[in-house]
Amino acid sequence: MQIGATHYRSIWLADDAWRVQIIDQRRLPHELLIRRLETLDDAVQAIRDMQVRGAPLIGATAAYGLCLAVRQDPSECSLTEAAQALKAARPTAVNLSWAVDNLASKIAELPCSGRCSAAYALSAELCDADVATNRAIGEHGLALLRKQVSPSGDSKPINVLTHCNAGWLATVDWGTALAPIFMAHDAGLAIHVWVDETRPRNQGASLTAWELQQQGIPHTLIVDNAGGHLMQHGLVDLCITGADRVTRCGDACNKIGTYLKALAAHDNGVPFFVALPSSTIDWGIRDGIREIPIEKRPDDEVTWIQGVDARDRARRIRVSPKNTRVRNDAFDVTPARLVSGLITERGVCAASESGLGRLFPEKRSGAVA
Amino acid sequence: MQIGATHYRSIWLADDAWRVQIIDQRRLPHELLIRRLETLDDAVQAIRDMQVRGAPLIGATAAYGLCLAVRQDPSECSLTEAAQALKAARPTAVNLSWAVDNLASKIAELPCSGRCSAAYALSAELCDADVATNRAIGEHGLALLRKQVSPSGDSKPINVLTHCNAGWLATVDWGTALAPIFMAHDAGLAIHVWVDETRPRNQGASLTAWELQQQGIPHTLIVDNAGGHLMQHGLVDLCITGADRVTRCGDACNKIGTYLKALAAHDNGVPFFVALPSSTIDWGIRDGIREIPIEKRPDDEVTWIQGVDARDRARRIRVSPKNTRVRNDAFDVTPARLVSGLITERGVCAASESGLGRLFPEKRSGAVA
Repeated sequence: MQIGATHYRSIWLADDAWRVQIIDQRRLPHELLIRRLETLDDAVQAIRDMQVRGAPLIGATAAYGLCLAVRQDPSECSLTEAAQALKAARPTAVNLSWAVDNLASKIAELPCSGRCSAAYALSAELCDADVATNRAIGEHGLALLRKQVSPSGDSKPINVLTHCNAGWLATVDWGTALAPIFMAHDAGLAIHVWVDETRPRNQGASLTAWELQQQGIPHTLIVDNAGGHLMQHGLVDLCITGADRVTRCGDACNKIGTYLKALAAHDNGVPFFVALPSSTIDWGIRDGIREIPIEKRPDDEVTWIQGVDARDRARRIRVSPKNTRVRNDAFDVTPARLVSGLITERGVCAASESGLGRLFPEKRSGAVA
Repeated sequence: MQIGATHYRSIWLADDAWRVQIIDQRRLPHELLIRRLETLDDAVQAIRDMQVRGAPLIGATAAYGLCLAVRQDPSECSLTEAAQALKAARPTAVNLSWAVDNLASKIAELPCSGRCSAAYALSAELCDADVATNRAIGEHGLALLRKQVSPSGDSKPINVLTHCNAGWLATVDWGTALAPIFMAHDAGLAIHVWVDETRPRNQGASLTAWELQQQGIPHTLIVDNAGGHLMQHGLVDLCITGADRVTRCGDACNKIGTYLKALAAHDNGVPFFVALPSSTIDWGIRDGIREIPIEKRPDDEVTWIQGVDARDRARRIRVSPKNTRVRNDAFDVTPARLVSGLITERGVCAASESGLGRLFPEKRSGAVA
């Protein structure tokens, strides 16, 4: 997508064709800081410290992390250790272990001498596949949005609410939840986005608002508390969020607070869609609330907030009293019964085992642990 | 309640017996700043700028605002203008117009020479009545909490979730939603409070956490997004919030986001109570969503956050991109169907016209506009 007049992906190789470049998303929207990853540790740190975030981009970064490890040492032992370190960096997103396991097993089959170049080629393929997947999600979502256009042809915009950031910064390009919105805007549909702030890390206020601003798409920032009230008053036509892990029955794990918006959507008859690449589906589990591990993140994400002061200097401030105890779960699970549909690269389906089974027949007989 | 070893109310007269003293709640939890109100304008500003907040305390501050106006000029005209200015300072809390109209009409019946002393006497009565009301709310709520204690007598704490601040700082003393919690703690019940941060003004993180810390009551700060997830996992035994206006049918208007917690409580079988003095009930309306005016507050409450830096210096920071459009509704309405009960000074009742009618039979025949 565009930053100013320049097209960017969220991860790409430097001119030397081996160093990995990323946008440090912790600095946005105040500063566009590009970092170079040169070692496995750089990649692990980028994932763990959330320089990069979003399930698909975490997967892509992990793939390149394997490349950097194999470039240093192509041995079996190095590969295994790298895979373990990368998978341990964030526990919830299933794309991470999917990307790492997939890549590591393919590389392990090759002789040591061929591993490095193969790893880079496979990572590039994974990135291109992610872009193609998200483009397909965008097209299927665009068809949904077109159905929302008033048949009278008036210019009333479609009001979409989204939570967190499932835009291009969360993927390699296009995004998941935002891909249909970018495409709708490109296609000339009048669209307006309610952007949930998304405490504690404010990915909505800092990333989604910034992405939409860069693309010139009308949007309004709201606190996470506001969405239910807006839905009660008919100000939301539909919700679209991303997902970090979806079960084979359609339970959707996403940024903490997604469940509350899904409840409000259900209570007010507002369609609630989850956009996801199929790599986000964990075919091995059914019950998201019981089976998906939820990452707990540091207290200071809640008690300290970062931003810039009136002179645009980076600052961190504390809002709560000193020594306040905190609990900081990063995700919650929206039960499938609250999800109107899943937008995948193969089309839109019901959030259910049968709905997913129709789109992904090859997974129907998948073993459940 | 206590601040350190000293007992405070949230509003009181200075030693000169006419200036009005308040705690500037915008500075908490970082600084205990006491302000003196000397004119009507001071009182209007304290309400409008949220130096004081919370429906009951707004009512008490408005009453003393009338005193300050009448002390300056006891004429009919002055009284009318003061009442108008005070009522316009915040639109949602019904206690404000209730307190102002009630007091103004009583004062207007007196000769000019007696108005000032009568106004002060009536305001002191109103404050004492608020304290008595909240103590009664606390006692009725305490009985509810006692029912939550495990019959096996184990020491598992009762986990209460609250949103915003309906503690003693929101009233003259004791609070509404927190009064039962203070009393339960005093009575030796094991209790733990989940404190919603309460964006955008963070009254949970800055005021409720501070109040509970001062009283030594175990509590954990969470982002507003987290409550649904905690309820899904059985970590919340009941919710108690305050209210800014309640309809005669039991719809409860409270801080934005309350509705989302009520939805989550309903979805997980967690009792959801609203604690309120009966002065908060607007007997003239039934449908809270359609009939309660919702205050819109300035954008910068969302885009700028205040707190202190690592050296405890007051700072404001911006989180979102420059020029981001914002919508900032201060309240939402929780439909009565989601409320397990209303805790009033006369006891606990169903959130319904018949429930309220049993506790307040004198209002049964009240005209509805």
